[in-house]
Amino acid sequence: MKQFTKLADVPDREHLIERAFECKHSPHAWRTLGNGRILGMVFFNPSLRTRVSTHRAASLLGMDVVAMTVGADVWTLETRDGTIMDAAAAEHIREAAAVMGRYVDVLGIRAFARLHDRLEDYAETVLERFAELSGVPIVSLESATRHPLQSLADIMTIEQFKRYERPRVVLTWAPHPKALPQAVPNSFAEWTLAMGYDVVIAHPPGYELDERFTNGAAITTDQNEALDGADFVYAKNWSSYRDYGKILSQDMRWQITPEKMALTREGYFMHCLPIRRNMIASDAVLDSPRSIVVEQAANRVPAAQAVLRTMLESL
Amino acid sequence: MKQFTKLADVPDREHLIERAFECKHSPHAWRTLGNGRILGMVFFNPSLRTRVSTHRAASLLGMDVVAMTVGADVWTLETRDGTIMDAAAAEHIREAAAVMGRYVDVLGIRAFARLHDRLEDYAETVLERFAELSGVPIVSLESATRHPLQSLADIMTIEQFKRYERPRVVLTWAPHPKALPQAVPNSFAEWTLAMGYDVVIAHPPGYELDERFTNGAAITTDQNEALDGADFVYAKNWSSYRDYGKILSQDMRWQITPEKMALTREGYFMHCLPIRRNMIASDAVLDSPRSIVVEQAANRVPAAQAVLRTMLESL
Amino acid sequence: MKQFTKLADVPDREHLIERAFECKHSPHAWRTLGNGRILGMVFFNPSLRTRVSTHRAASLLGMDVVAMTVGADVWTLETRDGTIMDAAAAEHIREAAAVMGRYVDVLGIRAFARLHDRLEDYAETVLERFAELSGVPIVSLESATRHPLQSLADIMTIEQFKRYERPRVVLTWAPHPKALPQAVPNSFAEWTLAMGYDVVIAHPPGYELDERFTNGAAITTDQNEALDGADFVYAKNWSSYRDYGKILSQDMRWQITPEKMALTREGYFMHCLPIRRNMIASDAVLDSPRSIVVEQAANRVPAAQAVLRTMLESL
Repeated sequence: MKQFTKLADVPDREHLIERAFECKHSPHAWRTLGNGRILGMVFFNPSLRTRVSTHRAASLLGMDVVAMTVGADVWTLETRDGTIMDAAAAEHIREAAAVMGRYVDVLGIRAFARLHDRLEDYAETVLERFAELSGVPIVSLESATRHPLQSLADIMTIEQFKRYERPRVVLTWAPHPKALPQAVPNSFAEWTLAMGYDVVIAHPPGYELDERFTNGAAITTDQNEALDGADFVYAKNWSSYRDYGKILSQDMRWQITPEKMALTREGYFMHCLPIRRNMIASDAVLDSPRSIVVEQAANRVPAAQAVLRTMLESL
Repeated sequence: MKQFTKLADVPDREHLIERAFECKHSPHAWRTLGNGRILGMVFFNPSLRTRVSTHRAASLLGMDVVAMTVGADVWTLETRDGTIMDAAAAEHIREAAAVMGRYVDVLGIRAFARLHDRLEDYAETVLERFAELSGVPIVSLESATRHPLQSLADIMTIEQFKRYERPRVVLTWAPHPKALPQAVPNSFAEWTLAMGYDVVIAHPPGYELDERFTNGAAITTDQNEALDGADFVYAKNWSSYRDYGKILSQDMRWQITPEKMALTREGYFMHCLPIRRNMIASDAVLDSPRSIVVEQAANRVPAAQAVLRTMLESL
Repeated sequence: MKQFTKLADVPDREHLIERAFECKHSPHAWRTLGNGRILGMVFFNPSLRTRVSTHRAASLLGMDVVAMTVGADVWTLETRDGTIMDAAAAEHIREAAAVMGRYVDVLGIRAFARLHDRLEDYAETVLERFAELSGVPIVSLESATRHPLQSLADIMTIEQFKRYERPRVVLTWAPHPKALPQAVPNSFAEWTLAMGYDVVIAHPPGYELDERFTNGAAITTDQNEALDGADFVYAKNWSSYRDYGKILSQDMRWQITPEKMALTREGYFMHCLPIRRNMIASDAVLDSPRSIVVEQAANRVPAAQAVLRTMLESL
């Protein structure tokens, strides 16, 4: 596996999921595989779960880790070609990527959508340039349009808790005070549809996601209808894809409450975290036994470990 | 030992001190004990000594370390329950603590007093929530009301340099330009009194510490009287506990000078560092052979190593 | 080798270069040499290459690494003696250096020139105080006046690519939007002259470097004349040494372009990075096969590994 930035990068999805569960059950079984290898992680945006879970995954494999926060620890990067660099950015992504590729064995990149220009965000400039220029395997730590380590952990969690062969999985928009990227819902739709789940996406009008990700899902603007009989409720806010980066609604009636959960088939509540309590979901939901958000976050470690392990084996 | 946040967490103080001296003399004797284990350190405030000495201690035990600065590397945390999270904080401490507990084997937390609300600070909200929700052993890296790793290093230093079975140990307030927490003096009083030393606390009127920490000490507002015959002079600034968080004095006559040190029984000068030179103590004191502040700081490594070693053995 | 802050610290330059090439060819040959040892890195300024390449070098030697950014992770430091510390700086360099020396086995320091006061910068206050007070081997990660890890990597790169026994090496000033220190050009002149290369330095009038570094080089204000027959073109901006820290020119005719490179003897283009594209050099130069800036950056790893290896062997 040369890169892990989207589902299409994975040669054998079922095999990767199997490996992730192996890592979950035997985390210490590959302790020398990465000896002498370094994982570099470049963060253009903050991170808690991704930073620590991926560090642990690398550590369990015997790798060393070096993490950098762009703009704080390291120079601000220019990503446009052909520009005269007389402004704030001290380094071009061309040099940064090529050099990092000489320093580390695997490179993780976190670069969120800026939500100003849809074409630019969906071109995945930062991630693609690092992949193209670094010459080493790239792991997305959440890019402008996808968050595949999260999705792999999400799939593990669903497989772990599902009671039916083909569970009903509802991805529902929920209110939030700030404009957020579509990376997590895009990626979740991409992976759950590939798994063959019964996927339903609910959101207020105007919040349709890019069809390249949601093709095959049932889409509705009626949250209650979506939740009816759900096995998993995956709440998440995102800003509009059509009216790009805009907040079109902050309708608190879309918050997940115990009343909403009562519509499900004793469904589980999921979220990628960080979650804004009493915006996305109420305390009563998050503190109930139906919430599996912490187990879901815990699955980030074996998910990352399976990806790194696969990459290390092919170095 | 399930947590190390205060003296009462320590089942056997003498045994822990003995272990700390073992670690000082044989730092490399437990190099594989922590293999495959991760120490997470979450800093809500800056740190030099604690960050590096605890890292070294963990490293000597074969552990891997991941350190995070809240607000820079990771999201700002909400600590209040029941709030609608529509403001700056992107994550609640409930999720952050529970998730960290799934990613690391031991969790260090630094969270200073904010000095706005005494009840809130003395409730140790951040530390208590991490202890309650993470499910892993917690090490205080200085909390709102205590700094036990510092106190353990302080005790080691006194035991190392003392010439009398029951030394006279003077904790004295000294001037400083900013309002500081009471954590270090509280903790120092708690530990030195438990050791049975002859403890004297000197400060200007209004700087009385919380009696729960100082019960058993001689307390005076006459610094010279306190210093008379002292074996150890522990200088430290703190803000008022009564008039909470306020600076009531910046009286430079409380600065420790060679003249003050001359009142002692060839006493040693101690401070937890960082120290403001020519405020807390004069250059002449800090640069004299009576100053043992660097040795005291060096003892932070075996202190942390003894705590982590004890925790690792009970994992 | 007790410190590596300037060429004069190196007992045997040829031997160190030889060791650096050994490290380049057999990076994994000393994997346990640094076990149980910690490299501390204190950054007063941002860093990408130095942070990551030195981390990798240490990791290849089995060392553990702890990196700190002053002002973010750790306290701001006071460097002047005798001052009353009632302002922003919470800690004096005296305590910080002495304490760090108790926590780490080798100490790396990055502290750029501030460009306000030439005497102060050229006194290398920060670096010298750490060297004097820490008691452990010091590695410069770029100081006010020199960048020896860069220079060692530069020499490796020239040795690797040179086609003539005594190559013509041209150090040329180039335009830049901000005032930069003289550390890299000083250091480059110091090392290349010691190597016996045919060194030419070209810059606009007023940009003469400190003669202590350039004594022995041909110096000209005619860039084209300098480039004639060059084997290596090392472009770099610096601010004036005479009119200290000032920008005297932003003449874009000094930018390195394909036309300039055509004057050389099929010369290679070098730069320490980060480089501002289309200021220092044009895209066409940087993206041509004559540019060896990435290989040059890659040599930072074996350069740092050779220095650390030598220090570890003498601990």
